[in-house]
Amino acid sequence: MTTTDPVANLQTLIRCPSVTPAEGGALAALEAMLAPLGFAVERMVAREDGTPDVENLYARLGSDGPHLMFAGHTDVVPPGDETAWTHPPFSAVIDGTELFGRGAVDMKGGIACFVAAVARVIEKQGAPKGSLSFLITGDEEGPSINGTEKLLKWAEERGERWDACLVGEPTNPDALGDMIKIGRRGSLSGYITVEGVQGHVAYPHLADNPLRGLLQLTHALLDPPFDHGTDHFPPSNLEVTSIDTGNKAVNVIPARASAAFNIRFSDVWNEASLKAEIMRRLDGAAATGPLRSGRAPVNYTITWPERVGQVFLTRNDALISSLSAAINAVTGKQPVLSTTGGTSDARFIKNYCPVVEFGLVGQTMHKIDERVAVADLEKLTEIYQSFIESWFEHAGD
Amino acid sequence: MTTTDPVANLQTLIRCPSVTPAEGGALAALEAMLAPLGFAVERMVAREDGTPDVENLYARLGSDGPHLMFAGHTDVVPPGDETAWTHPPFSAVIDGTELFGRGAVDMKGGIACFVAAVARVIEKQGAPKGSLSFLITGDEEGPSINGTEKLLKWAEERGERWDACLVGEPTNPDALGDMIKIGRRGSLSGYITVEGVQGHVAYPHLADNPLRGLLQLTHALLDPPFDHGTDHFPPSNLEVTSIDTGNKAVNVIPARASAAFNIRFSDVWNEASLKAEIMRRLDGAAATGPLRSGRAPVNYTITWPERVGQVFLTRNDALISSLSAAINAVTGKQPVLSTTGGTSDARFIKNYCPVVEFGLVGQTMHKIDERVAVADLEKLTEIYQSFIESWFEHAGD
Repeated sequence: MTTTDPVANLQTLIRCPSVTPAEGGALAALEAMLAPLGFAVERMVAREDGTPDVENLYARLGSDGPHLMFAGHTDVVPPGDETAWTHPPFSAVIDGTELFGRGAVDMKGGIACFVAAVARVIEKQGAPKGSLSFLITGDEEGPSINGTEKLLKWAEERGERWDACLVGEPTNPDALGDMIKIGRRGSLSGYITVEGVQGHVAYPHLADNPLRGLLQLTHALLDPPFDHGTDHFPPSNLEVTSIDTGNKAVNVIPARASAAFNIRFSDVWNEASLKAEIMRRLDGAAATGPLRSGRAPVNYTITWPERVGQVFLTRNDALISSLSAAINAVTGKQPVLSTTGGTSDARFIKNYCPVVEFGLVGQTMHKIDERVAVADLEKLTEIYQSFIESWFEHAGD
Repeated sequence: MTTTDPVANLQTLIRCPSVTPAEGGALAALEAMLAPLGFAVERMVAREDGTPDVENLYARLGSDGPHLMFAGHTDVVPPGDETAWTHPPFSAVIDGTELFGRGAVDMKGGIACFVAAVARVIEKQGAPKGSLSFLITGDEEGPSINGTEKLLKWAEERGERWDACLVGEPTNPDALGDMIKIGRRGSLSGYITVEGVQGHVAYPHLADNPLRGLLQLTHALLDPPFDHGTDHFPPSNLEVTSIDTGNKAVNVIPARASAAFNIRFSDVWNEASLKAEIMRRLDGAAATGPLRSGRAPVNYTITWPERVGQVFLTRNDALISSLSAAINAVTGKQPVLSTTGGTSDARFIKNYCPVVEFGLVGQTMHKIDERVAVADLEKLTEIYQSFIESWFEHAGD
């Protein structure tokens, strides 16, 4: 069974040019690895008007609980300027101690290691007592509309239930074992427009400069901080991402001005409480009136986009301690339990079961010469194997 | 001599459709009024690449000092929707107690009255002992490039010198006699660009949001006030007229952002001291660093446009007291000596001689149904006549 070798698995996967949303043969290659191990493999094509069709894969070994899911994606970001690569991005060349190729760390490498780990578990002691499944999408690097979210729903409708999930995204900033991600900050955006009264700069008392109001409002969003972080979350952070007026005449006070902002928020907040706090700040600043104008209140409106990234934190001890112990056993490190970074497909999975993320070192992801240390592939396979064994041992506790 | 009647003079001028920059017959009509009074009338056409040719007029009566100049313009702003006018804008219809037409108060009315006043002075006591001149442009409502500034230079090169000037712009907010303008605030604009570092909102420590810096800088410009005004000037006032970023992606921290501002400033400042104060504020805010970012300094640049409106204040007693006394004698009012409002051609004249402004009531200027009370035309003529007599009596004091 060659699938016990993560390096061979990864080379096979990298050589499938599955630039999002193309399947590129990658899911077929994965199916060819899993089926001989005893997995029941299914493919699910998701489609929606205005987005490309996407192929996804779901594979399950076993039929009873407890049920552990491994989640990830085989699609990769485009290679960029291929001539700038030291080795062609889909050739999977090993150069010295490193394996080069698009997807090496994000995240065909994670899949290759988990497949190898599962193969080793089976080789050593047979199939685990319970179920193991792979939930793999081809739409993580794209719009993420026809990927994990739909695949989960599709599987749930067929009766699938999971007890825990490990996402194999690259989570380590510098070295294997640095960091497990056990949650994510929430993400909320808003769009503010302030209506003033246009006029000549020489007669400010006849006008109402909306920028004075907008400066007051944005200042109230930026200061004071929303919180100072919690045990598992860094402080919430708000960025004003654009302020726009479009007034070309420097002797004219404009009629309106707008601002956009995004806040990445900790578990101090949920969507409702955070919106309430933002409105409290804005209304307070609006009541104070435009900066140094003597007028009040600021006449503003706010709109919220439909999609809000909910904050989540996984507190499942069996999952986190099994993974931490496995990492410590292989690397000697005590991984940080982190909630930093951008959103990931874990935001969808957390609605179905506890989810954590651990994979390779992310430094070269999305870059020219994406690559992975060959030694890390072996180590990650050992971590995953130890984790699987430990999780099935303790999941019923 | 019919030119002693300001109403007839004004009807003649309004019926010349001199929408800027067109002469429309207005200067020719004025010449036809002044020549019979003994004025030596000259026309001066100014031209410059990229702007329309403009006709201007200079007329002088007498050859010795003291020399009093009356300055103004015959060009008018466009009438707008002519069907919205109660009477056609160039028909000069008298309806009840009011005379309707574009330019009625801004400022063919002022010219009509000054011509009538001069005619009455001459009729009563002959030409004044000294010189009287009209400096009339056709480019006050346009770009003001081929108007008063060039006409003054042209006249000076021909040896013309003046001891005082009265500009006949409408200066009264509500009623004739309210307000003399004896100076103007300065006007300075600036353009600020802050350079940050683009990045993803989820990783603010890897980016540097230029809007945080720009908010810090603009706040420092708006607060505290630059001054609290002086005896003759209202407080300096700064308006941020535009802030622009152009960032469409709410999950991206932008690379740069810009702001434009204009300050109307009192005689606490001159151009150099005000620029130094602005730089002191900006550098101080830049050193503090972007709002709530922990970074410093803010990386910004500022550019200043070439044209700066210099602040000025006229302190010529003979000029101001002659005019105030004349206004008081006719209206019973004590006019406010003001420096409010936008720029006027007085900003050019003040480089040649002391200048004040007094004319009709400005309420309908630039509007549909611009009009003047017929009674005001007679009163303003009496004020101008009294002023001319008084000024020539006291100019040698």
